[in-house]
Amino acid sequence: MTEPRQKALEYAHTNPQAFLEQLIALCKLPSISTDPEAKPAMQATAEFIANKLTSIGIENVAIMPTAGHPVVYGDYLHAGDDAPTVLVYGHYDVQPADPLELWNSPPFEPTLKDGNLYARGASDMKGQTMAGIFSVEAILQADELPVNIKFMIEGEEEIGSPSLDAFIAENADLLKCDLCLNPDAGMLGADKPTIPYSLRGLAYFEIRVQGPMGDLHSGMFGGAVLNPANELARLIAGMHDANGRITLPGFYDNVVELSDKEREELSRLGMDEDYYTNLTGAPELFGEKGYTPVEQIGGRPTLDVNGFLSGFTGEGSKTVLPSKAMAKVSMRLVPNQHPNEVEKQLKQYMTENARRGITWEVVKHAGGPPSITPLDSDAVKALAKGMEAVWGKKPLYYRVGGSIPVVAQIETILGAPSVLTGFGLPDDNLHAPNEKLTLDPWYKGIDALIHFFYNLEG
Amino acid sequence: MTEPRQKALEYAHTNPQAFLEQLIALCKLPSISTDPEAKPAMQATAEFIANKLTSIGIENVAIMPTAGHPVVYGDYLHAGDDAPTVLVYGHYDVQPADPLELWNSPPFEPTLKDGNLYARGASDMKGQTMAGIFSVEAILQADELPVNIKFMIEGEEEIGSPSLDAFIAENADLLKCDLCLNPDAGMLGADKPTIPYSLRGLAYFEIRVQGPMGDLHSGMFGGAVLNPANELARLIAGMHDANGRITLPGFYDNVVELSDKEREELSRLGMDEDYYTNLTGAPELFGEKGYTPVEQIGGRPTLDVNGFLSGFTGEGSKTVLPSKAMAKVSMRLVPNQHPNEVEKQLKQYMTENARRGITWEVVKHAGGPPSITPLDSDAVKALAKGMEAVWGKKPLYYRVGGSIPVVAQIETILGAPSVLTGFGLPDDNLHAPNEKLTLDPWYKGIDALIHFFYNLEG
Repeated sequence: MTEPRQKALEYAHTNPQAFLEQLIALCKLPSISTDPEAKPAMQATAEFIANKLTSIGIENVAIMPTAGHPVVYGDYLHAGDDAPTVLVYGHYDVQPADPLELWNSPPFEPTLKDGNLYARGASDMKGQTMAGIFSVEAILQADELPVNIKFMIEGEEEIGSPSLDAFIAENADLLKCDLCLNPDAGMLGADKPTIPYSLRGLAYFEIRVQGPMGDLHSGMFGGAVLNPANELARLIAGMHDANGRITLPGFYDNVVELSDKEREELSRLGMDEDYYTNLTGAPELFGEKGYTPVEQIGGRPTLDVNGFLSGFTGEGSKTVLPSKAMAKVSMRLVPNQHPNEVEKQLKQYMTENARRGITWEVVKHAGGPPSITPLDSDAVKALAKGMEAVWGKKPLYYRVGGSIPVVAQIETILGAPSVLTGFGLPDDNLHAPNEKLTLDPWYKGIDALIHFFYNLEG
Repeated sequence: MTEPRQKALEYAHTNPQAFLEQLIALCKLPSISTDPEAKPAMQATAEFIANKLTSIGIENVAIMPTAGHPVVYGDYLHAGDDAPTVLVYGHYDVQPADPLELWNSPPFEPTLKDGNLYARGASDMKGQTMAGIFSVEAILQADELPVNIKFMIEGEEEIGSPSLDAFIAENADLLKCDLCLNPDAGMLGADKPTIPYSLRGLAYFEIRVQGPMGDLHSGMFGGAVLNPANELARLIAGMHDANGRITLPGFYDNVVELSDKEREELSRLGMDEDYYTNLTGAPELFGEKGYTPVEQIGGRPTLDVNGFLSGFTGEGSKTVLPSKAMAKVSMRLVPNQHPNEVEKQLKQYMTENARRGITWEVVKHAGGPPSITPLDSDAVKALAKGMEAVWGKKPLYYRVGGSIPVVAQIETILGAPSVLTGFGLPDDNLHAPNEKLTLDPWYKGIDALIHFFYNLEG
């Protein structure tokens, strides 16, 4: 008789087309969490996930309301008290798709090309969410689950998970677990299985400045009235010094420096200047002096303008002195920074530097602390072993530049560590036009997760 | 028998309602010259002006094509060779009306309230253009014209008159004149008849910067990739020093300093800091150190951001590292600066200061040199006398912050000085939502122009 693990892997290998068709159906749903008009699509997407969980035998499936978009929950708790309980995290929401004109195929009409699936959310993270579900489906088809499992698939990750904190706290008993599997990270390459051991946090703000009461004629008033767009540009420019360091008061006070060992490990990833210029098309890199690109992205905090709007931006010319300017500015944080501290630092900077010819306000949109996952935990070891079985090589460990606030929330509220994985690639165009998922490592990832659950058994 | 001048004034005083109705009809036409979709409205507006000129007896009326929007021409040349020939300038185009949501009444549905007519273009300058035409209508109803007259009403002033230079050069014989009456300036107050003796020039650019090839995830790349929005903000911030002086290389080399006499005259206008803060609602003024507000606006050059766009500017948050940023930046110029020189200075600044993590281009949208009009010319004296007859006081003379490139073009190509006037007020919301024309000074202005034409006779 075939070993259950082998039967589960065979099931997965027999059903790639079915897996793909289900992912395509999911990616057709425009579940843009930041868009108030996308609420029906959000509901339909939650129902899609709930129906899928039910169809593979998951129990207690429910679409649970929050202050914002609902969470899809389900569990299967038949492995006994001695087996670990794994909370599988995912999110069914996606980023906005604009600018639409830069997509080669419509963002919500999933399109296969050269082994990739192009669609908004294909990689971030409908593909990863479904990989987790398919791996459990494969095991359940072959065998009983070797672990107890709970699913928590949220709908607000792309807007900073504003309701999840309260949801986890209110449902702490329901969600109680020994560890969380979070496949919202990615791989460094299709043949480079990867376990990220650190995530940056996020603090996302909108800075609004107002000068005159209304837009003015730039000839009749220009020269005597402080221009809010010029002033906001000056304030933003002053947030960095010439070496690319951030000047908000106290910004680096709690930053833990990279250890020599970490810097050595990161240098082995081969992600050098050429790697990033080729990947991004940037003419040249620029970052904080004294750090390599992979250190700047994984181990150092940032301050980026995500959006800037003022005055007349249409075709041609309009000689207006705008009354307002707005910038979306976000910081990526590293241990041990905290978004609440950064908010204070930003406001202090504005208080100290803004000229009195404008008024300003800082609105917080999203935030989550950074985190580090222990490399020597059973969970990480189980995943590493699974990856080695599939790819035939040990995984790389590295620090992720992105933010997954839920990792910190689960650790804080449920006391459970998260093991991070994911099977997207660096050129997947996350949050950008032409997002794609490369299918080969995605299928391998499903196998690796099957191994992971069996390896956890002990 | 009543004096002809008196008969003309009586005609004007008998017909205020007819004048107003015609202005309202004209303001209903959305002649936005920068909007490619407004071409039919532009044509309809040119036809409206042409029909009006024909109806009052102007001869040789023609809608003359240019590379852009057409010019309306007409003349009445029966005063003899000894009488001066006056070219009456106007423009029938208007600024865009956005942001539409800030208008209290629709911009192209002229609305009367408290003695004001609210509409895009009511003050700038459909009202002023019609004041010139009504004054000639009044004289022609009463008498022969005491001067030879030509009308040149263009359709591209609000986009910097790109076709007018060539139009004037190609039609120099047709447009030949002794002086130009240009009512595209304004008054300092309803009871302050005003003759502006200087105009600032304009140099209007769009700066486009590009970093990575496409938008990036700010977590996965932020820290190592130069953010085009941050960089453009830094470049714009660096265009001023802490004293509000512009840092483009050589920018002040050709600037003629205000004389002590001019500064004394300007100080008599009563346009102090309170005047401008009350008018604009700005919390506090800010301008070049060492100059008063009226000097900063009339006699000193500026560099203002007219528009800034980058990344995600919708509702909520999107953690994008934008690939592009765009700013519309324009300079108001004073004698003897020239827009072509300023273009070189801006490009030199960008070459010297832009980091190599971005590429950039500077596109010129519009430009016109500054000008000064002689105070002791016959034309200015004729207008001053006319204003004194209507308002019972001598006019004020001051320097205008706005730009009227046609004044320099007419002086350069036709060798004719321009006398500037206009009956709009400083709070008319030119180029902004809720533009209005206050009717009382506008009616007085029609009378003053009737006097002007008779005074010119000698």
